[in-house]
Amino acid sequence: MTALARSNDPLSVADERVLAWLDRFEGALTRRDAPAAAGLFCEDGFWRDLVAFTWNIVTLEGRDAIGAMLDAQLDAIRPRHWELDEAATEVDGLTEAWISFETGHARGRGHLRLKGDEAWTLLTSARELKGFEESSGPRREKGVEHGIARGRRSWLDRRRDEEAELGRSLQPYALVIGGGQGGIALGARLKRLGVPTLVVDRHERPGDQWRKRYKSLHLHDPVWYDHLPYLPFPDHWPVFAAKDQIGDWLEMYVKVMELNYWPLTECRSARYDEAAGEWVVELLRDGEPLTLRPKQLVLATGMSAIPNLPDFPGMDGFAGESHHSSRHEGGERYAGKRAVVIGSNNSAHDICADLWEHGADVTMVQRSPTHIARSESLMELSLGGLYSESAVASGITTDKADLIFASVPYRLMPEFHRPVYAAMKERDADFYDRLRAAGFRLDFGDDESGLFMKYLRRGSGYYIDVGASELIADGSIRLQAGQVERITPSGVVLQDGIELPADVIVYATGYGSMNGWAAKLISQEVADKVGKCWGLGSDTTKDPGPWEGELRNMWKPTRQEALWFHGGNLHQSRHYSLYLALQLKARMEGLPTPVYGLAETHHRG
Amino acid sequence: MTALARSNDPLSVADERVLAWLDRFEGALTRRDAPAAAGLFCEDGFWRDLVAFTWNIVTLEGRDAIGAMLDAQLDAIRPRHWELDEAATEVDGLTEAWISFETGHARGRGHLRLKGDEAWTLLTSARELKGFEESSGPRREKGVEHGIARGRRSWLDRRRDEEAELGRSLQPYALVIGGGQGGIALGARLKRLGVPTLVVDRHERPGDQWRKRYKSLHLHDPVWYDHLPYLPFPDHWPVFAAKDQIGDWLEMYVKVMELNYWPLTECRSARYDEAAGEWVVELLRDGEPLTLRPKQLVLATGMSAIPNLPDFPGMDGFAGESHHSSRHEGGERYAGKRAVVIGSNNSAHDICADLWEHGADVTMVQRSPTHIARSESLMELSLGGLYSESAVASGITTDKADLIFASVPYRLMPEFHRPVYAAMKERDADFYDRLRAAGFRLDFGDDESGLFMKYLRRGSGYYIDVGASELIADGSIRLQAGQVERITPSGVVLQDGIELPADVIVYATGYGSMNGWAAKLISQEVADKVGKCWGLGSDTTKDPGPWEGELRNMWKPTRQEALWFHGGNLHQSRHYSLYLALQLKARMEGLPTPVYGLAETHHRG
Repeated sequence: MTALARSNDPLSVADERVLAWLDRFEGALTRRDAPAAAGLFCEDGFWRDLVAFTWNIVTLEGRDAIGAMLDAQLDAIRPRHWELDEAATEVDGLTEAWISFETGHARGRGHLRLKGDEAWTLLTSARELKGFEESSGPRREKGVEHGIARGRRSWLDRRRDEEAELGRSLQPYALVIGGGQGGIALGARLKRLGVPTLVVDRHERPGDQWRKRYKSLHLHDPVWYDHLPYLPFPDHWPVFAAKDQIGDWLEMYVKVMELNYWPLTECRSARYDEAAGEWVVELLRDGEPLTLRPKQLVLATGMSAIPNLPDFPGMDGFAGESHHSSRHEGGERYAGKRAVVIGSNNSAHDICADLWEHGADVTMVQRSPTHIARSESLMELSLGGLYSESAVASGITTDKADLIFASVPYRLMPEFHRPVYAAMKERDADFYDRLRAAGFRLDFGDDESGLFMKYLRRGSGYYIDVGASELIADGSIRLQAGQVERITPSGVVLQDGIELPADVIVYATGYGSMNGWAAKLISQEVADKVGKCWGLGSDTTKDPGPWEGELRNMWKPTRQEALWFHGGNLHQSRHYSLYLALQLKARMEGLPTPVYGLAETHHRG
Repeated sequence: MTALARSNDPLSVADERVLAWLDRFEGALTRRDAPAAAGLFCEDGFWRDLVAFTWNIVTLEGRDAIGAMLDAQLDAIRPRHWELDEAATEVDGLTEAWISFETGHARGRGHLRLKGDEAWTLLTSARELKGFEESSGPRREKGVEHGIARGRRSWLDRRRDEEAELGRSLQPYALVIGGGQGGIALGARLKRLGVPTLVVDRHERPGDQWRKRYKSLHLHDPVWYDHLPYLPFPDHWPVFAAKDQIGDWLEMYVKVMELNYWPLTECRSARYDEAAGEWVVELLRDGEPLTLRPKQLVLATGMSAIPNLPDFPGMDGFAGESHHSSRHEGGERYAGKRAVVIGSNNSAHDICADLWEHGADVTMVQRSPTHIARSESLMELSLGGLYSESAVASGITTDKADLIFASVPYRLMPEFHRPVYAAMKERDADFYDRLRAAGFRLDFGDDESGLFMKYLRRGSGYYIDVGASELIADGSIRLQAGQVERITPSGVVLQDGIELPADVIVYATGYGSMNGWAAKLISQEVADKVGKCWGLGSDTTKDPGPWEGELRNMWKPTRQEALWFHGGNLHQSRHYSLYLALQLKARMEGLPTPVYGLAETHHRG
C-alpha cells in the first residue's frame, strides 16, 4: 500500500509501473533474495546509497555490485515499506518516481528511474533515525515548562551553563575543526539531533572566512543553490550575495541556531587514543592551551585552505610584494602598480579584475588551458532547472533539488553535462571567439563535460565569468601564456624568455588536498592511511584512477576510525552535512552501523 | 475569468456561487453603481478594508455605510479583476472564499463569506503597490553587476555609505521611534519597499527590550503566532520562546534585514513643520544631540511603555524597595523578603511567580476581577485552528491565518469568542474552582467574550496562565482582595484595614495609552487632537464608547498629519506593519491616497 495508492488520485500507467516494480523489489528484499533484487535493475543499472543501506556513501554499478551489497547488508538493514510518494512521470520510456522506505533504524527517501520495467538508477538516502528524530515541527520543544518550580534554569542560564562546561567538565561528542559554511551547517544538524558538538575556528568571528577576502568577492553560485539547512535566506536576498552579506549571515546563523562555536581557536594537534576510543586534541583558545577528548573528529577546514605555493627559482629574491591568492585582501593598495598574477582559474580572474578595478597595470600568466563558463549561461543551461526562481515556483524545493542532483550517478554525469556545454559553446560563441582572439587558451574538460565535472574531479581548472573575461578580451587585463622559469628581483621570467616586470606578484596557484590537514594536525601516517580527499578517480587531468564512483573520503567513513572530512560548496555543505550528521548520531546512540564498501586508499594526498 | 476558472479543476456549487457574486459585484463597481454593489451585501453585512479601498483601516457596517464608502471612493480607487483564487468551501449555507482583485494603484487579496447569495463579511486588503513591488523572489536583485567597472562600490561599501550619510547628509523619509518587534517589523517592510527609514531605540542593543526583563519571562503566545515578516523562526524553535531567544532573534533580524537602526538613541522632542511638510525631531544619539527632518514619524514605542504608577498616600515614605512592574528585573535579590505585588494581571502573576521562585514571601493584592486563561486551553480552543502545527500542516500559512483572523469584523468577534470561553470554563472547571476557593475573583470579560476581546478593548485585565495560578490555588502565593488605602513605611494598608508588611512593593498597575508618547514627545495639543490609542469603543470596562469598529489610531492615518502609531503583539506587529508600510510608501511615491473615514477623536488618551 503506497501513500499515493491511499489517496484518491487515479493511478497513471507510470504510477502502476513504479508500483509493480516496488512490489517485486520489496518481495525480493523481504525474501532476502539479493540476486532477484539485483535482477530488477538494468544490466548496467546504478544504485547510489547515502547512508541508508551501506552506512556509507557508495554508488553500486551493475547488477553484480548491487547483488553483492545486498548480500552483505540485507540482514542488518531490514528494508521495508516501499512507497510511491507522488505521481510518477514518464517521458520517452523513462519513468521517474519519488519513493520512500524504511530500514530497521532509519526512514529514507529515494528516487527511481525505470527504463521500461527495469531500474536504471536508484537513489536511496537516509532522512532520519527512528527514535532519534530532530525536535522540530510537531516534535518541537515547548520551551518552557508551564508550572513554576524553584531553582529552574532559564534558556539563558542553560546556554551559559553549556558554554561554561563544554570543553571543561563536559566533553563534546563531536569536535569540528573549521567553522566556515561546512562546519556551521554540520554543527546545526548535530545540534538539532542532540549530539554535543563544538565547532572551533581560528578567525575572530564566524563569517570572517568570507569577510577577510578581497572586497569585490561575491558568490559565483546563485542564491537558490546556497541556502544553509533549516533557515533559508529571505527571498529578497540577491542572486549573487556579497562576501560580507554571507559573512554576516553565517555569524547570525551560529547565534540563532545556538551552536557551540569557539572563535580564535586553533587546533595544534590531534591523536587518536585507540584504547579510550577518543581523540586527544590540543587547542589554543584565544591564547590559552586546552586539551579536548571528543569521540569523533571532523575536519571541516575547507577545500581551499592549504595554499599551493609554487617553488620557482628566485622567489625569495623578489624586491616587490608577493603573496598567494588566499592572502589577497584587495587591490586598493596597488593603484598604478604593475601586477603579475600567475594562474588563470577563479581566484586569478577575480584578483586580476580587482587589481584592474583599483587602477593597477595587470598581467595574467596562463599556464594551462582553462574552462570559462559565463555565470548567466551556467544558471540558465545548467542549474536553472533545479535551483532558480522558476524551479521554486514549480515546486522543486531545495531538498528535492538536492536529491535530484544526487540521483545522477557520477559515472553518468559527464553524459548529462556534455550537451549543456555544447549548448553553451553555441550560445556564447562570440564571447569565446573574443577570448581566443585575445590569446586565451580555452578548454571544456578532457571529455568536454565542463565545469561541474572539473570541480568534482580536481576542484580547479575553471572560472565562472562574472566580468573578468571581458577585461581579458578587450586587453584591459593583459594575458601572457607560458610557464614560469624564474622570479627575478624585478619581475617574472617565462620559459620562452619573456620578462614581465612587476611591483606585485600574486600566486593564484591553487590549493592542496584536505588530506594535508590530516598530515598537519594528526600525522603523516594517518594522512597516508586515509589517502587523498576529493576526486572521483576519473583518470582525467589531476584526477588519477582507479575509478571510485564517489568523492574520496568526503562525508563518510575513512580508513582512520572516528575521523571525518566535511566540505565543499554551500550546496554540498548543506546536503551532505545531513548524512554525516546521521552517521555521527547513530554512532553516539550505539546503533549498529555496518559500513559497506569502505574505499581503498590509492593516492596519498 | 478567474484564476480558478482558468485551471482545469471542475467548479463546485460553492465556486459557482462565489463567481456569480463576484460577477455581479464587479459589474456594479464598474458601472460605479454604489447602491447596487452595497445591495449585494446582507442588510447587516460587513466590509472590512485594510488600505485597499479607503487608504485607511475601516470596518463598514451595513449596506448604507458600504454604499457611502463606495460613493466616495470608487472614482479614485477603480477596482477591477475580481477573481476566485482557490476552491470555495460551503458549510451550513455559509460559503467562504479567497479572492483577489486590483485597484488603480494596488493588488489586493480578500476573503468573502456569503450567506446564501449575499455577502455577510468581505475583507479587502492591499498586498502591494503596482510599480512599487518589493524586490523579492522573481524581482530580487542580482546583487552584483556582472562586468567589472572601476570605482564600483561593494555591498559593504554601500552599507557603510548609507550608515554614514543617514541622518546627516541624507534624511530618512520615515523615522520610527522605538525598535522593539513593532519598529523592527515595520523597518523591514519599509526596507524591502525602498523607503529610506531609520529606527531609533534607547537600548544598547536590539532585543534588549526583551533581554532586560525578568529572567523567567517567555512568550505567552505560541511560536506560530509570533513570526516576524519574511524570515520565520526555524522549525525547531520552541512553542514558547524565552525572552533572550527573542532578544537575540531581533538583533540578528536587524542585521540580516539590513535595517538602519540606531541603538542608544533617545527621542527628546518632535514638532511638525507644516510649511516644510516635515518633522523636526531632536535626538540624543549615544549622548550626541542631533536633529532629523523626516517626512513621516512613527511612534512604535510600545503599548506597555508608559508605566501607570498609582498615587497612593504614603508611597514616598515606604522604607523598603518599591518599583513599577516594568522595572522588575528579577527576583534573585529578594530571597527571604516579604514582597507585596499590587495588581493581578499578566505582569503581576509573572512577577509573583518569579519572586516566589526565588524564595520571597509573596502576597498578591487583587483589586478587581481578573480573567485567567490557561495557556494550553487557549492554544487548543482559540489559536490552534489558525496558528499551530496542525494549521501549518493543513496549508494555513502565516499570511492566510493573519487574513482569516482579520476577516472577522470586531462587531462580530465577541460572538465568535464566547463559545470558546464557554468551552474553556467547562474544560478547566476544576482549575477555576480551585482558584475561586483560594479567594481569586475571576471574570471572563463584561460579556463573557474572554481574553482577546479584553486585549483589544483595554489591553489589560487578564493572565495567560503558565503556572502562577497553581501557586495561588495552593497558597504558595498569598492572595489578598481589596483596595489599597495607603502605603506605610513598613507595608501596605488596605481599605478594610488589613495590613500587609513588606520589604518590597511591586506596582503591577499597568500602562498608559500610547497617546501619552505623543504628549511627551510632541505636545499635549497634538496628543489631544489625535486622542486615545487602542480600544474599540465597545462601551465595556475601560473601553468607553462610542463604537469605533477598529482599534483607535493604530496603523492608520491620525488627526495629526504624518504621525502614525504602530504596535501590538508580535502577530499584530507582523500583519499590520504591511498596511502601515504601504501607506508610507504610497505617500513617498506621491500616489493619491484619499483617506476615507478618518476617525473622530472622542477621548483624550
